[in-house]
Amino acid sequence: MGFGFNVDDISSSATRAQIALNALNRSELGGVDLKATTRTLEMATTGRIQLLDITRPVEQIVRDSGIKSGLCLVHAPHATVAIIANENEQGLVRDFVDKIEELYPPRGNYLHNRIDDNASSHLASGLIGSSRTFPVRDGRLVRGTWQNIFLVELDGPRTQRLVEVTVIGE
Amino acid sequence: MGFGFNVDDISSSATRAQIALNALNRSELGGVDLKATTRTLEMATTGRIQLLDITRPVEQIVRDSGIKSGLCLVHAPHATVAIIANENEQGLVRDFVDKIEELYPPRGNYLHNRIDDNASSHLASGLIGSSRTFPVRDGRLVRGTWQNIFLVELDGPRTQRLVEVTVIGE
Amino acid sequence: MGFGFNVDDISSSATRAQIALNALNRSELGGVDLKATTRTLEMATTGRIQLLDITRPVEQIVRDSGIKSGLCLVHAPHATVAIIANENEQGLVRDFVDKIEELYPPRGNYLHNRIDDNASSHLASGLIGSSRTFPVRDGRLVRGTWQNIFLVELDGPRTQRLVEVTVIGE
Repeated sequence: MGFGFNVDDISSSATRAQIALNALNRSELGGVDLKATTRTLEMATTGRIQLLDITRPVEQIVRDSGIKSGLCLVHAPHATVAIIANENEQGLVRDFVDKIEELYPPRGNYLHNRIDDNASSHLASGLIGSSRTFPVRDGRLVRGTWQNIFLVELDGPRTQRLVEVTVIGE
Repeated sequence: MGFGFNVDDISSSATRAQIALNALNRSELGGVDLKATTRTLEMATTGRIQLLDITRPVEQIVRDSGIKSGLCLVHAPHATVAIIANENEQGLVRDFVDKIEELYPPRGNYLHNRIDDNASSHLASGLIGSSRTFPVRDGRLVRGTWQNIFLVELDGPRTQRLVEVTVIGE
Repeated sequence: MGFGFNVDDISSSATRAQIALNALNRSELGGVDLKATTRTLEMATTGRIQLLDITRPVEQIVRDSGIKSGLCLVHAPHATVAIIANENEQGLVRDFVDKIEELYPPRGNYLHNRIDDNASSHLASGLIGSSRTFPVRDGRLVRGTWQNIFLVELDGPRTQRLVEVTVIGE
C-alpha cells in the first residue's frame, strides 16, 4: 500500500532475570519483580443501559501493583455487561447508549426472552466484548487522551457489578 | 457521576522472584514459577454459523498449566471465526446466530465475493474479534456464572478449526 | 452438543525459574528470560476510513523482543481508531470500509456532533475495540494464514497515529 513505518523504541524494558541473579551474588537482593495481581472493583448501576467511567480506579490499581512494564486486563465477569474505551463526553456517552439500543433493540423476536427478558443485553455483551486490555509502561496504564475506560451496563439497574483488573508484568 | 468505588483486594499475589532467591539460599528450591503455555484445541463444525461451547477444555488447560495468577488468552487463528463469552442457553445460542446473520447478512454487494463467497463471515470475524482474554486467579479461569466461552463458526461447516489457549503468569 | 475435543500439546514451555537457579549454581548464567517490552509504531493515514496493514512491523517487534512464549498486545491509544485481524484482500478491505460506514453512518442524530463532527468514528472505535491480542510461540506471533493485523482509521486523514505493541513472556 506504499507507506513507510517509523518504529520508535520508546520503551524496551526487557530486563533479564539473569541480571538479578548476578545481583544476588553481589548480595543485592533487589532484582526481578515478576508479578500478577488481580483486584476487584465493585459498583451499582442505576440505568438500563449506562456507562460508568472506571478509569481512575483502574489506573490506581496499576500504580498500586508496582508493575512497571506489562499488561492490564479489565474484565467484567458478567454476561450482560461490556467494557469499552472511549471519550467521556456527556453527549457521546448518550450516543453510545442510543447506538447500542439501535444495534441491539430490547424488543425483538428473541428465543431467550421465553426464559428471561434480556436477550438484547446478552447479544450486546457477547459481540462488543466484556473486557479490554491495555499496555503498562513506566508504571502507568497506557491510554490515549480521549480513551477513558467504561463499564457498560446493558441490563440494569443492578445492585452489584464487578470488574476484575489484572496487572501482569515486571 | 456521583458514585463510589469499593476496591476489594481479593487476590494480590505479587510474588517477588527475590523470595525464591532467598529460598534457594535456604536450599528450598520451590520458588518462582514463571510460565507461559500455549495449547491447541481442535474441533470440527457442522453449521454455517454455529456456536461451540469450549469452556471445559479451556478451563482444563488453565488447571493443567499449574499457573495460579495471570491471564488466559483464547484465540482462534482464523479469519472467519470469532470467540465470545456468554450464556449457554439453547434459545440464546440461536439468537446469537440470528443476530450475526442480521448484522452481517450473507447476501450483499460485497467485493470480496468476486473471489470467495464469504465476505460476511470475514466482516463478522474482524469486527466481533477472534479472541477473548480472561483473568486467572487461584489456579482457575475467572468468568461469570453465565459467561461460557464459545467458538463462533462463521463460515462452516469445516473439518478443522483451531483455538490457541495461552496461559501466562506465576 | 455431542462433539469431542482433541487437545494437542503443541507447546508447553512452562520453564521453571528454579531450573535457571540451578543453572546458576553450575555457573551457567543463561536462564530465565522474563520480559515485557512495549514499542510504538507511528504512521499517517490518508482516508476518512482506511485499513493499514501493520502485520510486518508487529511481527518484527515480536522477533526483536527475543520472547519465545507469551502474548502480544496490539493497542492503538486513540478514541477514533480500531485494531482488527483479517484477510488483506483488496475487495475485502473495501467491504470492511463499507460495512463500518453502514453500521456507523457519519450522518446521524448524534449529540457529540454539537462539539466535534465525528461521533460515528468514536462509536465504531469503542464498540469494535482499539486492541487485539495474539499468542507468541516459538518466538513468533501466532496468527492464521488469512489473519493480517490492521489499524483501522475511523476519522482520518491524520498525520500521526500510534500503535503500541507490547510483548510479554519468557
